[in-house]
Order: sequence, then structure tokens, then C-alpha cells
Amino acid sequence: MTHDLLGLTEELCGIPSVSGTEAALADVVEARLRASGGALRIERIGANVVARTDLGRDGRVVLGGHVDTVPANGNQVPRRDGDVLHGLGTADMKGGVAVLLALADDLARGRARFDATIVLYEGEEVADEHNGLRRLFAEAPQLVHGDLAILLEPTGGWVEAGCQGTIHIRATFDGVRAHSARPWMGTNAIHRAASLLERCAEFEAATVDVDSLAYRESLQAVSIAGGVANNVVPDRCVVVVNRRYAPSRSLDDAIDEIAAFCTDAGADHVEVLNASMAAPPNLTNPLIAEMVGVYDLPVRPKLGWTDVARFAAHGIAACNFGPGDPELAHTADERVERATLDACLALLESFLGIT
Amino acid sequence: MTHDLLGLTEELCGIPSVSGTEAALADVVEARLRASGGALRIERIGANVVARTDLGRDGRVVLGGHVDTVPANGNQVPRRDGDVLHGLGTADMKGGVAVLLALADDLARGRARFDATIVLYEGEEVADEHNGLRRLFAEAPQLVHGDLAILLEPTGGWVEAGCQGTIHIRATFDGVRAHSARPWMGTNAIHRAASLLERCAEFEAATVDVDSLAYRESLQAVSIAGGVANNVVPDRCVVVVNRRYAPSRSLDDAIDEIAAFCTDAGADHVEVLNASMAAPPNLTNPLIAEMVGVYDLPVRPKLGWTDVARFAAHGIAACNFGPGDPELAHTADERVERATLDACLALLESFLGIT
Repeated sequence: MTHDLLGLTEELCGIPSVSGTEAALADVVEARLRASGGALRIERIGANVVARTDLGRDGRVVLGGHVDTVPANGNQVPRRDGDVLHGLGTADMKGGVAVLLALADDLARGRARFDATIVLYEGEEVADEHNGLRRLFAEAPQLVHGDLAILLEPTGGWVEAGCQGTIHIRATFDGVRAHSARPWMGTNAIHRAASLLERCAEFEAATVDVDSLAYRESLQAVSIAGGVANNVVPDRCVVVVNRRYAPSRSLDDAIDEIAAFCTDAGADHVEVLNASMAAPPNLTNPLIAEMVGVYDLPVRPKLGWTDVARFAAHGIAACNFGPGDPELAHTADERVERATLDACLALLESFLGIT
Repeated sequence: MTHDLLGLTEELCGIPSVSGTEAALADVVEARLRASGGALRIERIGANVVARTDLGRDGRVVLGGHVDTVPANGNQVPRRDGDVLHGLGTADMKGGVAVLLALADDLARGRARFDATIVLYEGEEVADEHNGLRRLFAEAPQLVHGDLAILLEPTGGWVEAGCQGTIHIRATFDGVRAHSARPWMGTNAIHRAASLLERCAEFEAATVDVDSLAYRESLQAVSIAGGVANNVVPDRCVVVVNRRYAPSRSLDDAIDEIAAFCTDAGADHVEVLNASMAAPPNLTNPLIAEMVGVYDLPVRPKLGWTDVARFAAHGIAACNFGPGDPELAHTADERVERATLDACLALLESFLGIT
């Protein structure tokens, strides 16, 4: 069966699906999966659609992709230029969704060496509470269970293994208000925050080896806010710090470390805004080892957080492998090429033993 | 003539006049001045009311007060407790306005050694563009001209001489956005601002003697803002710095100095938001020297900016002298006592030679 993956990607990109507005695209995806029919069993919860085979095979591979995009950046309307498709969501990740819909078409015929589950979900580009995969694990975990999960996030043909954990922490500095003509009557909270910013700027993040992959950690102040009025010594300054940590570390240890970092810099209050565990690279998992080995795929560590960590947290080995250049995600210049889509589909068809 | 100054202050406080809503109070003030009549000539421009005598005396004293207040702080309704009046505007500065209305009553009878101008104006507690005295100097400078100006801002019975200048400068730090999992691809603008905050915190402001008065200068970061999103290395951080400087320095020199301070700390852009000149203490001015000397008034420097600098900029020697505790201005606990009102009026009646 041949698939026009670039044409399908263009069709998907023509249906706006910024996070929170995925329903229309989910309708199209659901209709298409139902039309594939055959061995597929379709379920929908919210704007999340799951298509599974249940052939009694010895092993199940879950293949996932999100249907939402970040907000448009002057690139709302997809534009074809030969075998290149430009526009919002082309790389992140409607190209991957197109590959998944084509795979579903293949799977519908019932000939594969594994059972497979295609999961297309909403709300990946926004706060975790909106994440459709989170909802599925909470409300219908049997729908997303498997022996291996592959997320088709753009990786440019690499296997991006595991992922770093991420923590956002809010450090608040207190002060005492006073008239800015008599600042010695008060305490300037913004001045008190200088020490934390200085330490963030000077912090030398480690590079940690896990399964021979080098995870380069980081620590950043990502926002700061303080000030009452232009003639008032400010009594509050709030800094949000983002910590990215390698999968060698537990979530609790990483939280303790970054909280201590802020407290040592003089913060009066420290609050964890969100904290996500890291995922191990799992390169010794037999299925991942086979995929990497048979196809001689290049492997690198994933530095940003992805939903592989959610699968890992539920005991499911997972990796990122999908079409498109990850560096172009969330940029105005986002694009995807036909060849990368075709290559991804061919590899996954082969790996799943689709005949 | 005896005046119930505390009762009059209570009446004035009963008419809300937060900046921008002074018209109703200006109506009452204008009606009262017109009722005093006699030698007074009344002019009104916006919510500003000016009452003058024109007796051909050898010298004119301008006495000024603003009719607006800061927003209420749970103290909207005035409350009498014996000879103390609590509530918004009691000290800053409807007590002073009450003294000015009583003085106008006296002046209406046409017996004083100076000509006098009573100026009651709007918009002092907000941005300079709303300041009624600014408007009067621009539209009708002859109405506010004189040989000496006394502002009845609360000074607790002291002469507060001159005033420090104030400059607000916006220092912007640039960076380069990147995903916060790969911060080495970008430049963190918030981290770059650390140096400026550090220098603000460590800055040792001078205390400058002018006419034997010690003007204690200051320099503060009064606001800071930066951040794009929690997973993005921020490309912009904006710090507003407030500089208060002694009247020994020119406005231009003070601007150059604070701009260089920010630039030296690495700011990429420096913009003056507003800049107000200082006012010299003028203790050698014959009229101020007489007032201080004859009544043996204690003198201290004014550290915050007041409209005395506006008079100074127009070549008119000016000082602050009024009823009420300046430390209580803009606090929920604002109040004024009958004795301080009576003492202020008696001194000004004597100084003006009202018989």
C-alpha cells in the first residue's frame, strides 16, 4: 500500500488545532481511523483517539503522537514547495500523525508480528493538566498499555532515548515597603533576588552519562517579576527557575537539590510549580535494542521532557523516533520533507512486521 | 476670626477626591472661596482653584496645596476621636487645605503685609502629566507667580527645605531565546540583569551637605520583569531604577550618572522614563530666612520630590511647611490633630501680617 504522506500532512495542517481547539482535527482523525476499519478497534475520550489491534500477538507496541500545535507564528497556512511542506505543525508533529494514520491503515489488514496501539492525543504543548495521554492513563490505562512505546515526536531520524526530567520552582523573596526616597526604612526584595540570579548565571551544569549517553543538564531563571510602584521599595520579587536533570537522578532528589539551591541563595519561600520525572534511555530493553541494532539507527539523549517519561512512569519502556527536524519545532520556519516521512513509515512497517 | 479647622478638615475629607475625581471637591472649595469674597479674586481652571489678593503690596507669597488623595486603604470615611481626625487625606493634605481656606477668609478682609495667592490644585499624587500646578504654570503662569512659595504638604511643623531630584530610568537587557532544555543555544537576559541588581544592592549612596542640610541620596531597583514562557530562555529583562539625588547636582549630570551606572552594569538599552530637578533649600532667601528665624522653626532637608522643585524651576524660592506627620502620609493610619492645624494657621497669619 502506498501512502501520500506529504499530502496527508498538508491536509492535517489545514485543520487548525492549537492546544485547546483539537476537537475538529480529532473528528477527522477518528473518521479516518473508522474508515480504515478492519482489525482496528477505535475508542475516543475527549479529543483523544485510540486505535488498537487485538490479534493475540506476543507483545504490543504503542505508537503515539499529539494532535495539538503551539500557537501560530505567521505560519498558520501550510505551503507546499515541491516535496517540502512548510507551516505550523508540519514537523511538530502532524507529519508524525500522518505516519501513524498510514500505519493504522496497514494494521487494519491484520498482518503484523505485534499487536499495536495508535494513540493520537490532545494537549501536549501546554500544562500537564491538559495532556490527553495523562487523561488516558488516568481514565483508561488498558487502552495505552504495552511492552514498548514509540513517540513520533520529530527526531530527524535519530532515536532520542529517554528524556531529562524538568522541574519549575518558584522562589519568592520578601522585603519591606518604604518610600523610595527613604529606602533605608524598608528592605528591597528585588535587590535580595540578585544573589539567586547571580548563582543561576554562574551555575555550571553537569553532563551525566547514562547508558553511554551524555545528558547535559541545565538550570535557568525563566521569569522574574517584582515591583509595587515607581516610588515604592518593593516588598516582593518572584523568580521561576527551571531545572533539567539527567535520568540518573530521582525526581525527589532533584527537587530537594533545586529547592536547596534557591533557599541557599536567600529565597524566603520555595514552591514547586511542576515536577516531571526523567525517563531512562532503556537501550538494553530487547525491543529498543532490536530497533536500534537492526536498522543501525543513530542514538542520542533527549534533553527536553517528552511523554516517554509518562510511559516510563507506568513501567513501559519508551523512546522518541519520528520524522522532522526537532530544532525547527516551535519556530516560524517549521517544515517537513516527503523523504523523512516515507523513511519513518517504512522503518516502522518493517519493525512491526507488517506484510 | 476663629476657625474650626478640624471640623473643616473633616468636611473636606467627607468629599472623596482620589486623583482624577477632584471635581466635586474643587466645586466646594471654589464656592467657599467665592463666599469669602472681599479682596479675593477667584479663578478656576479644571479642578484647580486660585484665589489672590491684588493690594499692590511689595511682595507676593504663594501658598499651595493639592486637593487629591491617594486611593483609600480602608480609611475612606473620616473618623473623629476627640481632637484627632483619622482617615484618608487628613494629613496628606486636607488639613493643609483647611488651613489655606481659613487663610483665604482672613485675606479677604484685605489686611496683610503681602499680597497672597492661594493655589488649590489637582493631580499631585499621580504622574506629573496630571499635576494641576504643572497645568497652571503652562496655561496661566501669572496666576501662580510670586516671591516665595510655601507648600502645605505635611511636615510636622518643620520647614522641609528644597527637595531632592528624582529620576526613573528603564534598563533593558537583551538575550537570545532558546528552549530551556538547551540554554546554551541562547542567552538568558534575566541572568544578564543580575549584575545591575547586585550593583544596586551594594550601592552606597552619598549624603550631601547643601546649606548645612544633609541630603541623603538613594538608588533603588523599583521593578523588574522578564520571561517568555516557562520552557523558554528569556530574551528580555527590564529593570526600572529610581535615583534620588541632592540639590547640589544638576538634572543633566544626575541623568548622565545613573545612565552610565546602568550601562556599566551591562544594560543594552537605557531610557529615561521621567526626570525631575531638585530644588535648593534656599535658606538664605530673605523671606525663608525670616520665617525660619523669627519663629525659630526647625529645618530639615526634604528627601522626596515635591512641587517646591516646580516653583524653583520657575525661579520662585519655595519650601514645604504644613500640618500633619509626613510619615503617616499614604498609610492606613493617616490622621491629623487640631493643635497642629491651629499652630500652622497662627504662624502663617503672623508671617503674612494678617491683622
